Amino acid sequence: MSVTPPGTATPWIRIVEAPKHVGEIVELRGWVTHRRSSGKVQFLVLRDGSGTLQAVAGVKDISPEQWEASAAITQESAVILRGMIKADTRQAGGVELGMQSLEVVSAAPDYPITPKEHGVDYLMDHRHLWLRASRQQSILRIRAEIISAFRDFMNQEGFLLVDAPIFTPSACEGTSNLFETQYFDDKAYLSQSGQLYMEAAAMALGRVYCLGPAFRAEKSKTRRHLIEFWMMEPEWAFATLQDVIALEEKLLIYTVGRVLEQRAEDLKIIERDTSKLQKVLGPFPRIHYDDAVKMLHEAGIAFEHGNDFGSPDETELSNRYDTPIFITNYPAAVKAFYMEPDPNDPKLCLSCDCLAPEGYGEIIGGGQRMSSLEMLTSRIDAHGLPQSAFEWYKDLRRYGSVPHSGFGIGVERTLAWIAGLDHVRESIAFPRMLYRLTP
Amino acid sequence: MSVTPPGTATPWIRIVEAPKHVGEIVELRGWVTHRRSSGKVQFLVLRDGSGTLQAVAGVKDISPEQWEASAAITQESAVILRGMIKADTRQAGGVELGMQSLEVVSAAPDYPITPKEHGVDYLMDHRHLWLRASRQQSILRIRAEIISAFRDFMNQEGFLLVDAPIFTPSACEGTSNLFETQYFDDKAYLSQSGQLYMEAAAMALGRVYCLGPAFRAEKSKTRRHLIEFWMMEPEWAFATLQDVIALEEKLLIYTVGRVLEQRAEDLKIIERDTSKLQKVLGPFPRIHYDDAVKMLHEAGIAFEHGNDFGSPDETELSNRYDTPIFITNYPAAVKAFYMEPDPNDPKLCLSCDCLAPEGYGEIIGGGQRMSSLEMLTSRIDAHGLPQSAFEWYKDLRRYGSVPHSGFGIGVERTLAWIAGLDHVRESIAFPRMLYRLTP
Repeated sequence: MSVTPPGTATPWIRIVEAPKHVGEIVELRGWVTHRRSSGKVQFLVLRDGSGTLQAVAGVKDISPEQWEASAAITQESAVILRGMIKADTRQAGGVELGMQSLEVVSAAPDYPITPKEHGVDYLMDHRHLWLRASRQQSILRIRAEIISAFRDFMNQEGFLLVDAPIFTPSACEGTSNLFETQYFDDKAYLSQSGQLYMEAAAMALGRVYCLGPAFRAEKSKTRRHLIEFWMMEPEWAFATLQDVIALEEKLLIYTVGRVLEQRAEDLKIIERDTSKLQKVLGPFPRIHYDDAVKMLHEAGIAFEHGNDFGSPDETELSNRYDTPIFITNYPAAVKAFYMEPDPNDPKLCLSCDCLAPEGYGEIIGGGQRMSSLEMLTSRIDAHGLPQSAFEWYKDLRRYGSVPHSGFGIGVERTLAWIAGLDHVRESIAFPRMLYRLTP
Repeated sequence: MSVTPPGTATPWIRIVEAPKHVGEIVELRGWVTHRRSSGKVQFLVLRDGSGTLQAVAGVKDISPEQWEASAAITQESAVILRGMIKADTRQAGGVELGMQSLEVVSAAPDYPITPKEHGVDYLMDHRHLWLRASRQQSILRIRAEIISAFRDFMNQEGFLLVDAPIFTPSACEGTSNLFETQYFDDKAYLSQSGQLYMEAAAMALGRVYCLGPAFRAEKSKTRRHLIEFWMMEPEWAFATLQDVIALEEKLLIYTVGRVLEQRAEDLKIIERDTSKLQKVLGPFPRIHYDDAVKMLHEAGIAFEHGNDFGSPDETELSNRYDTPIFITNYPAAVKAFYMEPDPNDPKLCLSCDCLAPEGYGEIIGGGQRMSSLEMLTSRIDAHGLPQSAFEWYKDLRRYGSVPHSGFGIGVERTLAWIAGLDHVRESIAFPRMLYRLTP
């Protein structure tokens, strides 16, 4: 199997670049998604990952052998086409290819995913091929845009990327739901959060963030749970709860704006109602936990003050607004041990969750971290955690402790909301779920 | 512990922004790295993660209580300083702070890392604090710049970020050196490479890359091995070996250029000889494996043709050049099962490793992947791997197989070379090595 070396003969261009080459002879390399024929004219739709384009050949444009090969070509066969880019306003992208030659690189007999409907399990079993569907491609392009937006935003705000470790000797928020592995003579656990490490890094570098995979061995089979997911976790020295809420708001507005601007075509392909995204402008409501509970009671929901919100509660609250909302000052008992107590009510803490609109629920969790060594020590005891595992973390309070705040934002949940996905399984190329470890 | 809310009183700025605020009253928040006094004048050196700056107070500039607090202040105490930014060409950054008030946020008695020399084990045990050292900060800033450069370059070249899974059901390159974990009713293994998944994604999206952590349970304790390391892996449909070599060359030139341009101050802090980096301009030598073996023989090294190169061999080869070098067409037997055979000599394969100069050795491994289903099937057998685990991977050859090529570049090894580090342990915030899982 050979490919004409680039630079010789006609230049190899990508479909996305085709509108800049109208009137030029070029080479396109990709896969056939559709074929039709009107007897004397053949139409091939080509995809190359950068876009799709229609190629047209009359019976005299290509050799008889190529004409025959084209007439027999099946979905997902790989081809190299050469010809002239022509303006055609009826086509997406405004161009088509006038074929002058066709080389079949390889055929694809009996491609398993046909235009007919397939069940979800079947598609998931063929995820390595399902990625070629235009909807799945568009979702992955939006995912990449969101991750770029996250990084560009944090960099602009003066935060430095610091990668957190994946192997950890102990659990950040208790020992349940952890994946364990033998690490030479020790046991290691896969990280659920890089936060504690980011706190150390923030004391060195002021403003930091990590963005990497995290792992939760939860036996949940919901639309919102992945076993392996990606998360960004900024941590900010000298920042208060209010500072990070303002930062989160700015991040979300920036990210939604970037996707609307840069991925308009993909949003169209996946048929996202973008009018809902256009309403994502600040300020987002800040709702105190106590007021959120009142709102639930007024709606006739039997919710006990002091509990954490469940999915139906979150849906009830977020459905009242067009934008993400912040719920602040949760009960300390339902949050992690390191949350700074609320000075106005020590039963509450300086935490904040962000709920996405349209029923997507929590996409961000964060807050102000405890800065007192004494209080932290007693909270570690109260949570039944071993002091020895946290001596290094306590050092951050022994040597130059400062108020500091941060948050974690889930990539897949943010994408599920922005792309309007029914299920988080489409939000990552190779999802890892309960009983789903392949392909 | 409270912090003045931003927006009230004086504006909180970061040290890196100070030169833009000469003549203004500002607030700085950070940690004290040094203190000295001339009796009537006190000097504090402040770091806030964005830079360091000298703050000066005469006995009448601040209150007697503040004067006393300042005189007693210890290394790594956290402070909030207010005062006027003044131009001072003797200072790094060209500015200093004329202190008008000092608030000690928290003291840091007996900070464990003093300006005296500490042993490596001691520093590694205190890695969470060692990160505050200016050298470690600079290395992490260069690391972040390299990762940004990698991503920006790939995005500019039309490659889409697609995150590869970490949990895998089988090994990419055999079953040795794998971390295993219980995945509900199955066993899962932590990824050593996302390549096979990137091949699937490249057939959907044409040009893709992943950038994430990878894990090798190697019992090696060398200057070049980490158990957990970060790697970028681009994969390119329709590209040949020569195409990816050209791409790698362009990536390295871009990355070194970005670091020279954006991180000049940090390179100075870590005392890197930048004249060596300035020579990293293309083209880099492409050396056929056979020729590399001849070069070793001429140098009097007893190397057997057909073997892989060891570290001393790589050092001998790379020391002859000022730039990275490419070694191509290795024996198929020393490379992974999926390498495309060399059409000129089927004992060799279309692989390429890139060796960094100055004795840093391999930083990139890559090549052209096998596109024939029949050959791939027989290679899987020959390597004693189970066909069933690779059926999905073989599907990529059943349906629209095309020539394709890619590579993996190690973040830490690239950083170790560019920053001139003696040991890879300084190249990541929280290194995971043999018997090193903490902090």
